This record gives sequence, C-alpha cells and structure tokens, in this order.
Amino acid sequence: MNISTSITSEGGAGQPLILNPSNRIRRSPVFDKVQAAGAKAWSIYNGTMIGQWFGTLADDCAHLKRAVQLWDVGGERIVEIKGPGAQRLLQMTTPRDLWKVNTTRCAYIPMVDSKGRLLNDPVLVRLADDRFWIALADSDMYLFLKGLAAGSGLDVEISDPDVWILALQGPLADDVAERVWGPSVRDIPFFGHAPVPVEGRDMVLARTGWSLQGGFELYVEGSENLPLIWDRLFAAGQDFDIRVGCPNLIERIEGGLLSYGNDMTEKHTPMEAGLGRHCVLDRDVGCLGYEALVAQREPARQVRPVDISGGPVPSVAKLWEITDQDGNFAGRVSSAVWSPDQQGNVAIAMVERAYWDAGTKLIVHASDGPRDLTVRARYWIGRHS
Amino acid sequence: MNISTSITSEGGAGQPLILNPSNRIRRSPVFDKVQAAGAKAWSIYNGTMIGQWFGTLADDCAHLKRAVQLWDVGGERIVEIKGPGAQRLLQMTTPRDLWKVNTTRCAYIPMVDSKGRLLNDPVLVRLADDRFWIALADSDMYLFLKGLAAGSGLDVEISDPDVWILALQGPLADDVAERVWGPSVRDIPFFGHAPVPVEGRDMVLARTGWSLQGGFELYVEGSENLPLIWDRLFAAGQDFDIRVGCPNLIERIEGGLLSYGNDMTEKHTPMEAGLGRHCVLDRDVGCLGYEALVAQREPARQVRPVDISGGPVPSVAKLWEITDQDGNFAGRVSSAVWSPDQQGNVAIAMVERAYWDAGTKLIVHASDGPRDLTVRARYWIGRHS
Repeated sequence: MNISTSITSEGGAGQPLILNPSNRIRRSPVFDKVQAAGAKAWSIYNGTMIGQWFGTLADDCAHLKRAVQLWDVGGERIVEIKGPGAQRLLQMTTPRDLWKVNTTRCAYIPMVDSKGRLLNDPVLVRLADDRFWIALADSDMYLFLKGLAAGSGLDVEISDPDVWILALQGPLADDVAERVWGPSVRDIPFFGHAPVPVEGRDMVLARTGWSLQGGFELYVEGSENLPLIWDRLFAAGQDFDIRVGCPNLIERIEGGLLSYGNDMTEKHTPMEAGLGRHCVLDRDVGCLGYEALVAQREPARQVRPVDISGGPVPSVAKLWEITDQDGNFAGRVSSAVWSPDQQGNVAIAMVERAYWDAGTKLIVHASDGPRDLTVRARYWIGRHS
Repeated sequence: MNISTSITSEGGAGQPLILNPSNRIRRSPVFDKVQAAGAKAWSIYNGTMIGQWFGTLADDCAHLKRAVQLWDVGGERIVEIKGPGAQRLLQMTTPRDLWKVNTTRCAYIPMVDSKGRLLNDPVLVRLADDRFWIALADSDMYLFLKGLAAGSGLDVEISDPDVWILALQGPLADDVAERVWGPSVRDIPFFGHAPVPVEGRDMVLARTGWSLQGGFELYVEGSENLPLIWDRLFAAGQDFDIRVGCPNLIERIEGGLLSYGNDMTEKHTPMEAGLGRHCVLDRDVGCLGYEALVAQREPARQVRPVDISGGPVPSVAKLWEITDQDGNFAGRVSSAVWSPDQQGNVAIAMVERAYWDAGTKLIVHASDGPRDLTVRARYWIGRHS
C-alpha cells in the first residue's frame, strides 16, 4: 500500500482517515480517470466523490494560475426545474431577481428559507423561459423545491437529469476551448452561456467556474459522453500544459469564493455571508424570506478575509474560535491554508460586528494553538480578466 | 503511517481512498472516542463521519451476535417537527397512519413525494401530540419538510436540535441498560420509548436500532452530555464484554435491514422496496403520494434477498447488474458481503417481476466477474427475541 507522505489528511490521532466506498456514495462517470490522474485525497460533496489535490495544494494552485486544468465537478449535482410554475417556484427561494436573467445567462443565486437562512448557493442556468438548471452546492436543495412545489400546488416538474459538469479553468482555458469549438467561445461573456457541439449534439458551455482564473463549465448530457469529451478536452490541452485538477483551497480562499457548509451554513443569512449585493429587497420579487432579509440588513456578524500569523496552519476540520485580547468571543475561522504566493496563511472567518473593521487584531484558537489574526479589507486576489 | 493490511476499502486501482477532513463534514461529539477505539474505515452519512468497522467486519459481526456494542450513530441526523400542524405535515409525507402512534411509541416511516418515490425512511419518535423527532436516513429530508411547510402554510416549526443518538445493540444490551437505569428498561416494548435519567435530566430511550440483535437507541440531548453518557455506558458494559461498534454490513444484510441510498433510492417506491406492509392505502390518511402508491400496488420489480456463489465478493461500490442465462436484464445487486455464519455471500437485490420467485437462478455481473445468483424466499436471520 503506497500512500504519499505528503498527505496531511488525518484524524485527531494523526492517522489518515480511510473512506469505505459504497454504492450510496456516487462516482461520476470519469471517477476512474480522476483516480488514475493521481487524486491524493477525496471529499464527499452532495453524496459524490470529489478529488481534493493531485500534486500538492501549492503545486496545483501555481499550475491553475499559470495554465489550464480539467476538473470533474460532478459533485455539483444538477437539478432541472421545468414548467409554467418554474420561475415562480425558484423566485420564492431566492432574493435575486430572475426576471433579469435571460436565456443566454447564468446567475449565482443564494437560496433561502422563510427565515432568510441560506439553504444553498447554486449557479442557475436559464435554458428557456420555463426551464432552468441549478448546479447545487452541498445540500439536497431539490428536496426543498419538491416540498415547496407540492405544498404550493405550482405546475412544475423537478427532476434529476443525467447531466454532469466538467470545468476548464485557468488563464489558458480559452485557448483549449477554441481548439475544440472555434474562436466564438471567446465571445461568451462572464456568466453567459452558449451551445457547443459535443458528441453530435449541442450542449451548454458557460463562462463560470469555482476559481478566479477564468474558464468555462460544460454541462455534459449523458453519462456515456463524459469520458469522451474529457479525453477530447485533455488532448486539445496538451499544447497548453493542461492537467487534471479540482477546486483549489488556496486559490479559492485568496479569491473569496465562499464554500457553502464551511464559510456559511443554514444558520446564516446572505447578509451575514456578505452576499447582500445579490439580494433585491423588493417584496414583489416574491422571495419567501423577504421579511427576514429586510430585518437582517444590519447583520450582527459577517464574513471577512483574515490573515493568520506564523507558519502553515493545520487544516480546519472544525471551526476555530476567535477572541479579542481579553478573551471575549469575536467570531470563528471556517477556512484557512498556507499561501505560497502571499507567504502567509489566508483565511475566511465569520466576525462579530464589533470586530469586523479592517485592521482589527484578534486571536484565533487554531487546533495547534493560539495565533495572531488580522481582519482584512479585501481578499487577496481578484478575477483574472 | 500505520494502515492495517486488512483494509479492503479501495478504489479501482487498488489504492485506499483517503478522506480529506473538512468543517463541512460533521463529527459527532464522540468522534475522537470512536477513532481511539480503532475505527478502521469511515463513511459519510448525512454529511457526518461514521465508523465502518473496528476489528474486521466478521469479528465485529460475531461479537454483535454474542455480546453488546456501543454505537455512535450521529449520522442519523435528528429533526424536530413541532406545532399544531406537525402531525398533518408529517402525514403528508408518509403512508403510515400516524394516528396509531401514541406518545410512548416510535414508528418506522417510509417517506415519499407526490409520485410515491422514497425520500427517506426514518424512525419517528412521538414526544407529544404536537411534537416529533425523526432520525434521518441519508438525505436532507428536513428540506422537503421545510419546503412543504412553506408552501402549504401549515403552522409548524422544523428545527435541528442538539440531539445525538447512541445505540446499545446486542443480546446483552438489556443487561447493560439495567445496570445504568434499573430493571424497568426491560419493560420497554419493541419500538416503544420511555424516559431515563441522563446527566440530571430525562432523555428518550427507545427499543430500536439498526440490528436484529435487540437493544436500544438513546437520544442524548446536549453535545456536552454525549461523551459523559458514552463513558458511563461503556463502563457499565465491562462485565458483558462491551465493545465500540457500528452498524454491521454482514448482520444487516442477513437480517434484511435495507439501506436507503443503497438498496432503495428516490427512484423507487415503498412497494418496490418491499415496504408495502407499512403503507396504509387510504386517501383519508393524507399522504401526498396516495394516488401513485395505489397505482404501484403491483410493482414491476422488488427487493429480494439473494445468495451469490463462490468465495468472498468484493465490496459493492457500484450496482452489479443481474441477467438471466440468455443475457436479459433481471435486476441489480445493491449490497453484498461474505457471511462466515452462512458460509456464503449474502446479498440484497432489486429483481424484476419475471425473475423474483424464490429459487430462480440468475447471473450477477460482479466487479470481479460473473457469479451464480439464486433468489431466496426470506432473509437469513430473524429478530433476536
């Protein structure tokens, strides 16, 4: 049994946690390819195996920032919402105004319950006036939609189509996509989508993805097509140093991409998660959580980027409490990692209002002991243009 | 890094799958104790780490059948449904008649959507006329309930209480429970519950659990109490050879305990899962799936116990197709394992109607090649009295 000593994935006793495979835990149609590419560790996302890193987190990050990677993000489970009541049903669950999303567009939609608590934050793809896909973050949000549809009597069909996302991410993603589909892919705007031919039929290519380095997500219809287009994209990327990759912890913290279930949960509102800019606080939009969201306009805590002192932090397997110098509770760190580019630990925390101003110096009680923490004004990197 | 060579948990390339810990994946308040007890592999159930075996599956099974085990089943996430509309809301999702479940009783309730498809199969605990707990199988069923409550306007509160289940399972479970709470625990009937004192307050002890060997599930309120009562139960069990354990794959297949997500999914109806005996097909009960369930009274396929020939089978990481001798599709095996007691492979399959009679001989295309399969009339073991 050959386990790389670079694996930092471990339990409290310093032993690696071995995952028992099960039919209950989904594998994407390219699971074998991801494993063969050398995935060193795995997580479970929406009940689906997802690779975590291939070289080291740092090597993967550096490569993502300079070249292009092919990601199996089958954990972003796709749900289809279709029918005369589809827009109304979705609009009940999100404060974003879906009337502004036409059939060439995607939208990041925080989804909330009647109390304005976050239930998911998928990307929505509008396929037609009455037909949508959402690519779920880590919760069975389709169950809320099914329950809401049953209770409200809206005429809508909610289904689990055989659609899987492949992401092409990195500054050279456009070059690879052009090789495969021609130069018109360069014209797809940020959060726009357009049809591209895949195995004889048109499929959705969207300029979205869980990195700040640019690129696309391809919605592959039909499990049998996934290995074929995977190989085709990988072959087309050879001249651009393409590698198999996955969402990278370092890059996504540096860029401020929040992870649902980590940095924000169903105990938080979009305002606490700093997603207020996506919330249209207009009763007529029809969001169930409208009243609660209005009441939350001045949240008591909010997500902040924070610097953590010292050498590389251990992984955050449980939230780390933050206090002020007198020991008063000031918040919790949800994600943290050493960034070679920043030469420091980059982190995301939910910080109480009294402490959230940039420059505030606090103490984080990390799993390996206390460290200095400083609240920042903004994330470390912006979107690659 | 010391990994036992007895670990059979592996990916396609024969390498163990290493789990990357994350704050997104819950750990119960006794996770450290379960790890220290020697959990050899883990699964994720309702987003929560659960141990899979401690010695070997066979050793764990033999011990469970002869003594008593303490299980951390924090993956059975508890949801509280409370308020004047609580019973009506729950009844909309299940064909069981909840009027027959009084406040001293639990009930196994298949839960379905409007199409009669299984969404979960929790144990329900009735705490009061207007207050229930459900201990979820592996799906975010509370999201369906929340959506249904929002859509239907029922006056009901759905919450995620700080309650965690510990199971005491095995023929000597009553002896351990008597040491801790006195002889009256012996009077708790099957699927009954009664209050017992835990850390100064009454908590629910139910005669339920995911084995056929008898025993209890204790609903521990307050994370801080879980390690305390864990230690107390473990100490009380010393004279009875108590060990830390977990639901055992061999024993639960032998006993016909179906695993939601493995043996039945949201693509199946309760009738296909062989749960028709739990379905009251009476429109007045109020189940949303009533029409669909009536239409399903004669299902086209159904769960069956099956014997598989040859030596120990590999683990079922993906469904194995079953065909007849001419290659026609006959069903799929969802769970299978070598049973030392049966001296053969015990398995659960969804079998098409034309083939489901006991004694039918078929071929299963296991991940290591074809084997003979025989449909059985009943499971291998019955409930320990």
